[in-house]
Amino acid sequence: MAKLNELGAGEIIRRVAAGVSTAEAMTRACLDRIAARETAVQAWAHLDPDAAIARAKACDRAAAGPLRGLPVGIKDVMDTADMPTEYGSPIYAGHRPAADAACVAILRAAGAVILGKTVTTEFATTFAGKTRHPLAPGRTPGGSSSGSAAAVADGMVPVALGTQTMGSVIRPAAYCGAVGFKPSFGLINRAGIKAQAESIDTIGLIGRTVEDVAPVAAVLMGAPPGAFDGELLRPPRILLYRGPDWSKVEAPADAALESAAKRLVAAGATVTEQGDVPLLKEALDAHLSIVVFELARSLAYEWGAHRTRLSPVLAGLIRAGLNCSFEKYQAAQKIADAARAWFDAAFDDIDFWLSVSAPGEAPEGTSTGDPVMNRLWSLLHGPLVTLPAGQGPHGMPLGVQLIGRRNEDAALIAAARWAAARL
Amino acid sequence: MAKLNELGAGEIIRRVAAGVSTAEAMTRACLDRIAARETAVQAWAHLDPDAAIARAKACDRAAAGPLRGLPVGIKDVMDTADMPTEYGSPIYAGHRPAADAACVAILRAAGAVILGKTVTTEFATTFAGKTRHPLAPGRTPGGSSSGSAAAVADGMVPVALGTQTMGSVIRPAAYCGAVGFKPSFGLINRAGIKAQAESIDTIGLIGRTVEDVAPVAAVLMGAPPGAFDGELLRPPRILLYRGPDWSKVEAPADAALESAAKRLVAAGATVTEQGDVPLLKEALDAHLSIVVFELARSLAYEWGAHRTRLSPVLAGLIRAGLNCSFEKYQAAQKIADAARAWFDAAFDDIDFWLSVSAPGEAPEGTSTGDPVMNRLWSLLHGPLVTLPAGQGPHGMPLGVQLIGRRNEDAALIAAARWAAARL
Repeated sequence: MAKLNELGAGEIIRRVAAGVSTAEAMTRACLDRIAARETAVQAWAHLDPDAAIARAKACDRAAAGPLRGLPVGIKDVMDTADMPTEYGSPIYAGHRPAADAACVAILRAAGAVILGKTVTTEFATTFAGKTRHPLAPGRTPGGSSSGSAAAVADGMVPVALGTQTMGSVIRPAAYCGAVGFKPSFGLINRAGIKAQAESIDTIGLIGRTVEDVAPVAAVLMGAPPGAFDGELLRPPRILLYRGPDWSKVEAPADAALESAAKRLVAAGATVTEQGDVPLLKEALDAHLSIVVFELARSLAYEWGAHRTRLSPVLAGLIRAGLNCSFEKYQAAQKIADAARAWFDAAFDDIDFWLSVSAPGEAPEGTSTGDPVMNRLWSLLHGPLVTLPAGQGPHGMPLGVQLIGRRNEDAALIAAARWAAARL
Repeated sequence: MAKLNELGAGEIIRRVAAGVSTAEAMTRACLDRIAARETAVQAWAHLDPDAAIARAKACDRAAAGPLRGLPVGIKDVMDTADMPTEYGSPIYAGHRPAADAACVAILRAAGAVILGKTVTTEFATTFAGKTRHPLAPGRTPGGSSSGSAAAVADGMVPVALGTQTMGSVIRPAAYCGAVGFKPSFGLINRAGIKAQAESIDTIGLIGRTVEDVAPVAAVLMGAPPGAFDGELLRPPRILLYRGPDWSKVEAPADAALESAAKRLVAAGATVTEQGDVPLLKEALDAHLSIVVFELARSLAYEWGAHRTRLSPVLAGLIRAGLNCSFEKYQAAQKIADAARAWFDAAFDDIDFWLSVSAPGEAPEGTSTGDPVMNRLWSLLHGPLVTLPAGQGPHGMPLGVQLIGRRNEDAALIAAARWAAARL
């Protein structure tokens, strides 16, 4: 029998709802695992075990909710009124917001136990926090949702929230061998999240299986609890895509993609391959202009009042944004609009696009890895799921990425459920 | 010679840049007017004269910036690190944010003097604050940017920031006889603004003339300082539109629209009239579903933790949002997408659409007036300008609204400059 800390979200919710277990027991199981492993993994920016147990006890006393008793980790770019929120920056050491972010408040109202705050890179950008890869302390867990991915993969919490602007949900989830879900842009409310690039920033979820992320996503979106529980009615039609900058993808990741496609074909899927799309190459370039231009505005206060406390890499991104002209930004947004319209129409005979989630295994060192396989999809605003797909030569996880049509998140989750069972 | 507090933004910037005047002198002139009039108008949620003068002196010592010396009022839904930010709600009495909103930080960096915080309705929704109409204390100044509109119209500050989700920039500006500019969605960064409906919320500006809002808008967008200084090359082609729910428009407002159209025709413009557009009627209905659905998520924390301190009218809006299904919300967003695509294409032989800014004069009592003439345009994401257009039977200002093509804000401002000179 699985240990309590290894149970999936669906099982936890069922047990607590049935009175077979309690929020407190689930929370204690998570805390025990954290106590054993946090020195090695360092996934948590803030964790107060006594306060977490108190919150769990309150859940046990409260009325039933669709996520009652489910421990959730919260990326530390999301405001919490009862815990520090430091955004991965020394500027905000000890900062205590006046309110919960909307996503946190929605989870609380649904009965989830807010376990603690997970480590983020500096303002969810590039400069890494303290977290290490659970399987290899010399490697990165990826970023920017570093702590969320590592904590989930290590069995510290069944599900955690992240955010994605470049590739900050999908890439760390893939590096850690977890499942990541970045919903369509706009479906999860961002009030109370530290903004990076507001035309792209999206809240996502990391779990160990599709079943971990599905019920939490439904609650966060205001959809019915079972909105993402559907099954595919027939094997999917898949478009395999080796996008722009494929030269950066390492052979093991490419082989994992090939192998995944073969397994899905063996299970009845059809796979065709998409060739070059010049507009998507343009969109990949446009993404960077949009992100740096908007980032330089989002962090205008920190740039003006605390410049010396920003990392050199972030200062460089902000300078790039201040040097990007408004004209160039508007041109990039026009390309993004055109690419989104093209992509919305690119699903007529296709259930999802399939690609790699990252160029290879989690790299050694403190770089959180290259988001080159993520940035295009973040820009296009559609739903994304990464699924574990074998290991690389160093025994580290690899992932494949399913890319869905904008606002058809339930269809992509159903396809991911089908694919996950066959990979 | 105009009093200092009645100078326009362009003139203030020129005088301070030329060393003919100082930020301190401009600020003192505003403070003198406020001291004389605030008891009657009650436009300010927070104003500390000594601190404002200290900020002005710091501007006079600092390096030149494109807005150096310009006093600006900030709607109290925008975070300020050195002033309380109460969002128009008792829940946040005395709240002091850790950071400035991006728009505030950008203004400071450009040399503007942040004069104080202007009164907002409760979380920029319906429940009115204390502000009165400068011309008639028994009437509303409109809302939700009540204090910004009243302060500008009364000569307390040359320009002030607002936000619009329903009609919160255009309607109060029109009621008060001011110029209001709501830019295209997404062009002014919203980091640090209390969110209402994030797929619609837009920061806007209120001034006494087009020249007051143009330079500030350019700075806020990251455009070159003169980006909105252009002139029309030929008289505009105008589409006059009496939209859905025109039965709610009072005769004087309709007459002001007719009269404005005639004056513009006399000056060389061509005016044709647009008939019913069923999709735009659908879009008007969709707007309300989107706003209440998103509002209920944006204020999830306040609903969960401070429900008894919300006004009954806001609680009703949140309940409506919680009762709006995800399916209905997604259907409304699809209508919005379709209406935006239709509207983007509706400018091929047209420079701007022309309608009324509000159903009539500012009403008596504490209701901030009906946003029925604003909601559609807020949803469509394009730029909007309201210009003063005569008076109603009670001597209160009326306004006409110019509606531009999405992301062609410079063209609309140029058209508004042309029209303002002829109305």
